[in-house]
Amino acid sequence: MHVIADLMVVPLGVGISVSPYVAACEKILKDAGLKTILHAYGTNIEGEWDDLFAAVKRCHEVIHEMGAPRVSSSLKVGTRTDRMQTMDDKIHSVEEKM
Amino acid sequence: MHVIADLMVVPLGVGISVSPYVAACEKILKDAGLKTILHAYGTNIEGEWDDLFAAVKRCHEVIHEMGAPRVSSSLKVGTRTDRMQTMDDKIHSVEEKM
Amino acid sequence: MHVIADLMVVPLGVGISVSPYVAACEKILKDAGLKTILHAYGTNIEGEWDDLFAAVKRCHEVIHEMGAPRVSSSLKVGTRTDRMQTMDDKIHSVEEKM
Amino acid sequence: MHVIADLMVVPLGVGISVSPYVAACEKILKDAGLKTILHAYGTNIEGEWDDLFAAVKRCHEVIHEMGAPRVSSSLKVGTRTDRMQTMDDKIHSVEEKM
Repeated sequence: MHVIADLMVVPLGVGISVSPYVAACEKILKDAGLKTILHAYGTNIEGEWDDLFAAVKRCHEVIHEMGAPRVSSSLKVGTRTDRMQTMDDKIHSVEEKM
Repeated sequence: MHVIADLMVVPLGVGISVSPYVAACEKILKDAGLKTILHAYGTNIEGEWDDLFAAVKRCHEVIHEMGAPRVSSSLKVGTRTDRMQTMDDKIHSVEEKM
Repeated sequence: MHVIADLMVVPLGVGISVSPYVAACEKILKDAGLKTILHAYGTNIEGEWDDLFAAVKRCHEVIHEMGAPRVSSSLKVGTRTDRMQTMDDKIHSVEEKM
Repeated sequence: MHVIADLMVVPLGVGISVSPYVAACEKILKDAGLKTILHAYGTNIEGEWDDLFAAVKRCHEVIHEMGAPRVSSSLKVGTRTDRMQTMDDKIHSVEEKM
């Protein structure tokens, strides 16, 4: 099952700078062969369902290993059966109507 | 890995009444042995990471089988390593401070 | 414009216990005359658009005044023009299909 | 109060193609003088709190006027008092650690 997703990970109990933890998670997502695009409030991800969720689990594990006692993620997950769609398709579909 | 989560599933392309799809997903979560509490904008879920995400995948599959060409889920996922915490603990922790 | 919403506020830079900040925000929402139901991953809120968003702004201001240098909120906001719907209606609509 | 936000609007009851509605909302955000960056699962927005939320309200109103009986938005909103931060700052802060 092909997925377009958006992930924001928030480590708690580590102060206000969360970027080292976000960077560690980005690396995990890329190493898993997923397409990722970092934005100012999370990361767009495209790939197979099982690859994506294995990587998200690994993000939680690694952020805990880095010292964060608490991790709260927000995840949006989209699947469709009518046609194949990429992240670029979604953006172009809006831009051509503007 | 123990998880407290919140799931909202949104089927697209099926009209404005989404409750039959939400009900089908609730059944999947319960059948998976997860603790669930339905609220007005999603469902609180407590259980093991792998059980939870297998059930969420099954929700997408079943909602597609019911006829929805497109499904978009929003998921919040919390893990912590400092101590065990239940959904009730989280609510009581806020209520005792009010 | 009548709204059913869900709000999760996350103060960053204050350690791992966020409940005093969540409790302060709950009080603000109630004092604003909004209907609220606390759950394990946020708060369901029902009321008028302008009242709701004025209260959410006040939550950010007060959590900063309490000492949090950074606040990140997640908010879901639903409006509909076809019929009036309450938070209870949404829950019952799912429960009667289970 | 300066805000970095992320907005996803989902019109329900209008079929599976939501891009015309998303495009209308993008236009409203830009016309309000807010900085926006469209991504595959929403839009990053930067600006003043009141300008942002007035524009989000206008998005709901216009999407209803376009024929959607139901609109559900997901919004993330971040404020900080320790220092000024832009959307670019957030992205660079992660990228320099990768």
